[in-house]
Amino acid sequence: MPTVTFLPSFRKAEVKSGSTILHAAQQAGIHMNVVCGGQGKCGKCTVYVKSGRYDFDREKYGKFYSAEELDAGACLACQTVVTEDMRVLIPEESIVQEQKILIDVMGITTELNPAVWKYALTLSPPSLDDPSPDLTRLLWGIEKSGGPKEGDIYAPLEVIRRIPRVLRESGWKVTATVVLVPGGYRLIDIEKGDTTASCYGAAVDLGTTTIVVFIRNLIDGSIAGVASNYNRQISCGEDILSRVTFARKGGLKKLQSLAAESINAALTEAANNAGVDRDDIYEVVVAGNTIMTHILMEIDPAYMIEEPYVPVVRRYLTAAATRAGLDVGENSGLFIFPAVSDFIGGDIIADILASGMAESEEISLLIDIGTNFEVVLGNRDWMFACAGAAGPALEGGEVLFGMRANAGAIEQISLDLETLTPAYRTIQHVKPKGLCGSGLIDLLAELLRACIIDRTGRINMAIDHERIRAGRQVPEFVVAWKEETGIGKDIVITENDVKALIMSKASILAACLTLMNQAGITRDEISHIYFSGAFGNFISKENAIVIGLIPEVPVERIAPIGNGAIEGANLALLNRRKKKFLDEIARKIAYIELNAEPSFMDEYTGSCFLPHTDLSLFPVVEEMLEKCRLRRGAP
Amino acid sequence: MPTVTFLPSFRKAEVKSGSTILHAAQQAGIHMNVVCGGQGKCGKCTVYVKSGRYDFDREKYGKFYSAEELDAGACLACQTVVTEDMRVLIPEESIVQEQKILIDVMGITTELNPAVWKYALTLSPPSLDDPSPDLTRLLWGIEKSGGPKEGDIYAPLEVIRRIPRVLRESGWKVTATVVLVPGGYRLIDIEKGDTTASCYGAAVDLGTTTIVVFIRNLIDGSIAGVASNYNRQISCGEDILSRVTFARKGGLKKLQSLAAESINAALTEAANNAGVDRDDIYEVVVAGNTIMTHILMEIDPAYMIEEPYVPVVRRYLTAAATRAGLDVGENSGLFIFPAVSDFIGGDIIADILASGMAESEEISLLIDIGTNFEVVLGNRDWMFACAGAAGPALEGGEVLFGMRANAGAIEQISLDLETLTPAYRTIQHVKPKGLCGSGLIDLLAELLRACIIDRTGRINMAIDHERIRAGRQVPEFVVAWKEETGIGKDIVITENDVKALIMSKASILAACLTLMNQAGITRDEISHIYFSGAFGNFISKENAIVIGLIPEVPVERIAPIGNGAIEGANLALLNRRKKKFLDEIARKIAYIELNAEPSFMDEYTGSCFLPHTDLSLFPVVEEMLEKCRLRRGAP
Repeated sequence: MPTVTFLPSFRKAEVKSGSTILHAAQQAGIHMNVVCGGQGKCGKCTVYVKSGRYDFDREKYGKFYSAEELDAGACLACQTVVTEDMRVLIPEESIVQEQKILIDVMGITTELNPAVWKYALTLSPPSLDDPSPDLTRLLWGIEKSGGPKEGDIYAPLEVIRRIPRVLRESGWKVTATVVLVPGGYRLIDIEKGDTTASCYGAAVDLGTTTIVVFIRNLIDGSIAGVASNYNRQISCGEDILSRVTFARKGGLKKLQSLAAESINAALTEAANNAGVDRDDIYEVVVAGNTIMTHILMEIDPAYMIEEPYVPVVRRYLTAAATRAGLDVGENSGLFIFPAVSDFIGGDIIADILASGMAESEEISLLIDIGTNFEVVLGNRDWMFACAGAAGPALEGGEVLFGMRANAGAIEQISLDLETLTPAYRTIQHVKPKGLCGSGLIDLLAELLRACIIDRTGRINMAIDHERIRAGRQVPEFVVAWKEETGIGKDIVITENDVKALIMSKASILAACLTLMNQAGITRDEISHIYFSGAFGNFISKENAIVIGLIPEVPVERIAPIGNGAIEGANLALLNRRKKKFLDEIARKIAYIELNAEPSFMDEYTGSCFLPHTDLSLFPVVEEMLEKCRLRRGAP
Repeated sequence: MPTVTFLPSFRKAEVKSGSTILHAAQQAGIHMNVVCGGQGKCGKCTVYVKSGRYDFDREKYGKFYSAEELDAGACLACQTVVTEDMRVLIPEESIVQEQKILIDVMGITTELNPAVWKYALTLSPPSLDDPSPDLTRLLWGIEKSGGPKEGDIYAPLEVIRRIPRVLRESGWKVTATVVLVPGGYRLIDIEKGDTTASCYGAAVDLGTTTIVVFIRNLIDGSIAGVASNYNRQISCGEDILSRVTFARKGGLKKLQSLAAESINAALTEAANNAGVDRDDIYEVVVAGNTIMTHILMEIDPAYMIEEPYVPVVRRYLTAAATRAGLDVGENSGLFIFPAVSDFIGGDIIADILASGMAESEEISLLIDIGTNFEVVLGNRDWMFACAGAAGPALEGGEVLFGMRANAGAIEQISLDLETLTPAYRTIQHVKPKGLCGSGLIDLLAELLRACIIDRTGRINMAIDHERIRAGRQVPEFVVAWKEETGIGKDIVITENDVKALIMSKASILAACLTLMNQAGITRDEISHIYFSGAFGNFISKENAIVIGLIPEVPVERIAPIGNGAIEGANLALLNRRKKKFLDEIARKIAYIELNAEPSFMDEYTGSCFLPHTDLSLFPVVEEMLEKCRLRRGAP
């Protein structure tokens, strides 16, 4: 039988004399354009015969080509007959290009290109004429279905062991699951019949407090299920330091299994709600801070909390998900986001991925605010990052009537600048019980606008107003009278509260300014400020600038990106190209240790004003404050 | 500090201003030629500065270069000082080339290039200035010691988990073990202190009957220990078919663990004798027939003994050795030779490797004789292989006084052509008890030379001699009188014995001729005939030709290669480049199913003569027989 060798791939097919080149191409696993179904009508299956005699009706089909092209061997693959060995070049435009499926991941459009594929195969049973081994038969089937080449797929022992039985019991109709891991392709499952419809992956945000799990259908990218719950490690210590201390005392295994349990509980909930079999989850992608991911992988985190603060591992990690105790398919993969340092973990890399800043030429500033904060400045070519403690004030802690963002928290507030009467909105529209972070930022900005506080945060007792009063120890402003509250007493903000808030916001602003100094970047050059975390979704962008929480930029440049960790994990799960990019991001980031940076203290001192001592950094705010001052007739 | 970037590798080093380029190269992990120790005397450390100012004393050292070279930036790395950022090209000749160590593996000279390396490292502890993660620090240490690049080494979870403790408990002096597996480099061990002296590997011949183990020192390639024992699977069936039947009845797990037990017993014996800790055995390479290796990996062999006789897997297999139950280091690798088909297994691929025939342009014929035989014909470009059953006659079975090659077996024999008196040698020089294979071949040839038998194997009763007698049922020749034997009775060879031997040898010769026909090769074109197995070590090459066991070639072209399976396994263990070559060999081989080949029966019929019906295939034998005929005055 003549052999057709296709260029440039050098794939070969042996076909009966008289077959078409198209048939040979199909046999070689090459998917050609055949718009007309092989009737010689569309002219899309052009190939160039480079050697070997061929039979092509120039009179009938020559119209598709110039004389030059015909001389170069151009012909229609569907109308050209093979009679002897030949070499055939297939130009790229004659090959069906893989369709790119674009999907929307929480507002980001990305290509659907997961690391997991399923191939439904109908194989011919072995015969004396074709006694290829079971594994080869299966892998060739995958290759012919457009999958990776037979020789490029690694088959782990436990899958090989199941192959002969599954092939025969299924009557040679099986579904093979292949995953692309850093070392190459792996055959991770073989099932009877066609199970291609059941192919899922999970994205996990492994937070110190909360765990969020998304189950995605990897066929169409859709969300199959979502669940979240508390990190059960809380029973071993509320904050991250106490967890590490627990681990040092021999508790690492316990913390590991609690992390796995917490993820499994969320996975189970999400899978059950969606009617998904957990065995059909073939990949789990986890983003978390460096300590959390060390613990999940049962790697000692102890050395990150004492000088010189080194993690054991920074690169991304891959392993069988079952090795971390996750209840998914036996051979399913686990991918852990890489980290930069003890403080800049996979969660921040996920933030960066979700923001898109590492793919843009424009310079962005990313801020993730919690009890600790992280700030990243840069673009696709360079990045600086730092981390610090902001204290709990911005989350409502250590503020007299501060509270978490639960029902009854004032989340928005404004003052009538004439009457000084507040107008506010509470979460779930119940009577107010206190103020959460976004409410406090609003309030601080409004107090400043109304000249009730000055730029150092002192309350102006000279204003004669019933809401401005001496308070027990320090001056205070009454936000809500007890009759209107849900707690039976006046809700106030004290001068001490204001000072605590200023100190918190000053750390963040000083961190931003320190990175900008390091990079030699002015605020005008910042094209985007991204807020990651729930906090950023609810705060007023204008007021964040007015109080000097962030550098002044036009508000349209500011955008919240929501839970960047889970978004980034989803992106990496759905588009494997993003995974490769993560280590690149991590390597690009220069970590700035704020405490080792002399300029940071100067910036902090300057930032302990509203918005800053140097008003030239906040020209719009300066103008606004000037107007307010004039209106109030203040000095 | 200025940075020196080395081309073409783009490796970088940051050095103090005033350092030499040589120092920077060392820091970047590049090993340069410094024959004179950096005194500017040998001129071997030439580099070309491509950018950056540099300080090189042209008057003193210019003699090493032409004006053109100097213009191109040539200078001595040991005498040129770095004062600012620069780019430096290092020509290949200035880099120390890895020394090739050649060793002798049972007569074959090969490069010592194992897949396992140990690196003794003294790392600087982390500091606030250098807070790199533990893993990165370790991998950089390996890279700087001339090992693979940090980013190219995969670290499995279980090793990562041990890193922080071992680093700190050892005072940052550790030995890292890296293995090259098909997917890339893997970090498989970290130990305290310098353990580079203890680095071993094991080569295993997993035979149906016997298991042979070699432990090799991977530092110098020397043999640390050898052991062999019976395959304990014999308790589940003596021959390979009965083992597969046992496996089909649910006994696969049992057979697997018996195989592992047998290997472990030999490993332990060899390790104990050599004083080697089995944990220091980092790789195990196994060659065996296809059914044996399937069983060792617990892969169902059942489909190989029924039509259409397909193995599950043909490619080489890698896994953690512990996954097959082998008692070696926790993360040590297991490499299983690939196979071609059910009948041409890894043992034959090992034979081919050991013979060197796949690397030669010359055409070779390889013959592995046992109860079953395998024949391979070809060279580095093409290969044909076949297998068949020769019956037990050549091993002394089904022959009246045949026996295995044990004490008392006649292993060599000749006849005085005048008196017909035999002269023989027995194994261990005791009184004869019977004849083993090599003795039988000698005897057959001598009977033919003496015209006692004709070319069909019939005994010529017309010769009047006391040793030639009617026998009980068929004529026989007395080899030894009962007085001289160790069994108290005459040792004879009967006409039936002769016929059985002829049928056995005919299968082998017919297989050789069938392959030669397939390839269109005549006996003149065969440059080498290799005998694999113990059999080939002891038989007379001349007599093997006289009886027509093998095609006639000049005897100097015939060579025994001993136990090719264990030799091949040793070669692959000591030189990883050979491993890559195995799949190539396996893919190159075209398997010829003798029973499906019509010409085989014709060749067999022709081969049932001594040496063959067609004497033109055996011109030297023909001439010899003619002389004998004339001397005896036979018709």
